[in-house]
Amino acid sequence: MNDVIIIAIGRELVNGRTLDTNSNYLARNITILGAKVSSIHIIDDVEADIVKTMRTALASKPALVITTGGLGPTVDDMTLKSVAKALGQKLVKNRKAFSMLKKRYDELYRRGLLHTGGLNEGRIKMAVMPSGAKPLANPVGTAPAAFINYKRTTVFCLPGVPAEMKSIFETHILPWMKRHVPTGHWVERSVATSSYDESVLRILLDKISAAYPDVYIKSSPAGFLEEKSLEVFFTSVGSDKDYVEKRVSDAVGMLEQSMHK
Amino acid sequence: MNDVIIIAIGRELVNGRTLDTNSNYLARNITILGAKVSSIHIIDDVEADIVKTMRTALASKPALVITTGGLGPTVDDMTLKSVAKALGQKLVKNRKAFSMLKKRYDELYRRGLLHTGGLNEGRIKMAVMPSGAKPLANPVGTAPAAFINYKRTTVFCLPGVPAEMKSIFETHILPWMKRHVPTGHWVERSVATSSYDESVLRILLDKISAAYPDVYIKSSPAGFLEEKSLEVFFTSVGSDKDYVEKRVSDAVGMLEQSMHK
Repeated sequence: MNDVIIIAIGRELVNGRTLDTNSNYLARNITILGAKVSSIHIIDDVEADIVKTMRTALASKPALVITTGGLGPTVDDMTLKSVAKALGQKLVKNRKAFSMLKKRYDELYRRGLLHTGGLNEGRIKMAVMPSGAKPLANPVGTAPAAFINYKRTTVFCLPGVPAEMKSIFETHILPWMKRHVPTGHWVERSVATSSYDESVLRILLDKISAAYPDVYIKSSPAGFLEEKSLEVFFTSVGSDKDYVEKRVSDAVGMLEQSMHK
Repeated sequence: MNDVIIIAIGRELVNGRTLDTNSNYLARNITILGAKVSSIHIIDDVEADIVKTMRTALASKPALVITTGGLGPTVDDMTLKSVAKALGQKLVKNRKAFSMLKKRYDELYRRGLLHTGGLNEGRIKMAVMPSGAKPLANPVGTAPAAFINYKRTTVFCLPGVPAEMKSIFETHILPWMKRHVPTGHWVERSVATSSYDESVLRILLDKISAAYPDVYIKSSPAGFLEEKSLEVFFTSVGSDKDYVEKRVSDAVGMLEQSMHK
C-alpha cells in the first residue's frame, strides 16, 4: 500500500498557541506525488500519548509514518524515546548522529554563531535514537532526523521547526518515496459553479460520480450565504497518466455541459 | 476529567488542499477556558475511519469529543451516520432538526436567496441523526449541529465551514462547557530571551521547572540560525486564580533574574 500517517507532536499544537502547518505541507506534497495520506494526528509532548498513537498507526500497516516535532535538546523533546518504546527498540547513542552533531556544533562555534562548541548534555541527547534508526542530516538546523524500518512500515521522525522539516522532507523523504512507495499520477481540477445550494447541486454531482467512479468529486461550501458560488473539486490518481487526465477531464466536461444547458 | 478530543473530518484536509484551522480555533479557545485538549485527529470522509477514530477517542473517556465537518447534504457528508454507528445508535430523522431545516429553507427562499424552498432529499439528509442526538441551531448556515451524550462523554458534531463552526462553538459549546466541564484559570506568559541555543538554555529551564513543577515551561525554536533569540513560554492552569498567576509570575521572574545576571 501507499498510505501515509502523519503525527505532529507538541504541547504548543494541542493548546492552540501554534497552528500546525507542517502536516498540511506534508499532506499536500505527498498527495501530489500520488500517494495517500490516510490520517493526521496532533498530540501532546507526553510519552504515553506518543507511544499509543504510534502503535495505533503501525497497527494499520501504513507504508510510512512521519512524525514532526520533539527532536530537540530539551526534556520535553521526547519523540525518539517514545518511538523506541512503541517499536520495542532500545534507546542508544547513535554514533553517526553523534558525529553529525559534533561537526555541526564545532562549525557553528567556529563561525561565531554560538558561544560554546563541542557537545553538552542537551546536544548529545539529540544523538540518542531507537537502536534501529539511521540518522538523516538536518541541512538547516542541528537535530538530525531519524529513519527507521519497522516490519513493512518506514518511520521518519522530523524536527518541528517548519524550515527544517521541509528541508529534510525534500532532501530525504521525497527521493525515498519515489523509489520505494508505489505512487501514481495525481490530477486535481476545480470548477466554479453558478450554484450556491449544495442540496440541489448534489443531484448532478451524484450523476457524475456514478458515471466516473474513479474520480472523487467534492463540492466545497466555503460559507453558505456569503458565497456567490460553490466550487467543485475533481481529483483522481492512477498509474496511467493519460487515462487519469482523460477521466478527470471528461467528468469536468459533464459538469460544464450541465451548467450551460 | 476535563479532556477534550477534536476530530476534523474531510478529504480536503487529508489531501492537503485545505489547511485545517478549525481545530486550532477550538484548541485555543478550550485551552483559554482552562480545559485541556488532549489530541486532534484529522481524518478522511470514510465511514470506517470515522467510526474507528470515534471509538478510539471514546475509549479514553474524555469529557468531550468535538467533530467538525461532514454534516452537509452531499453523499460524502457522513459524520452523523458514522457517529451513530460508533455509538451503537440508530440513524433516525430528527423531528426538531427537520423542522429547523424546513423553516430555514423557507425563509431563505422567501428572501430570494434560493431558487427553491421546502425540503429536498439533500436538505432532509441533514435532519438524519443518531437517535440520541439533540440538534443545535446553526445561526449562519443550514446544517444543524448535533449534541449527543454517550456514557460520561458528550459529543458535539459541528459543520466544517469555519464561520458556522465558530458560531455554534460560541453559541452552544462555550456556555455548555462553563456549566458542565471543570475548567480552571489559565495563564500564559512568554519571555524573549537573549539565547538562541536551546542546548544551553535548557539547563536553566530545567532548574526553573524543578522549582515550579506546576508551571509548564517550553522554549520555542522558531528556526535555529535565523532567530535572534528563543522565546520561552510559561503556562499553568488551576482553580485558584491568584495562586496560578503568582506561580507563573515567580517562574518568569526566575528566568528574568538569571538573564540579567
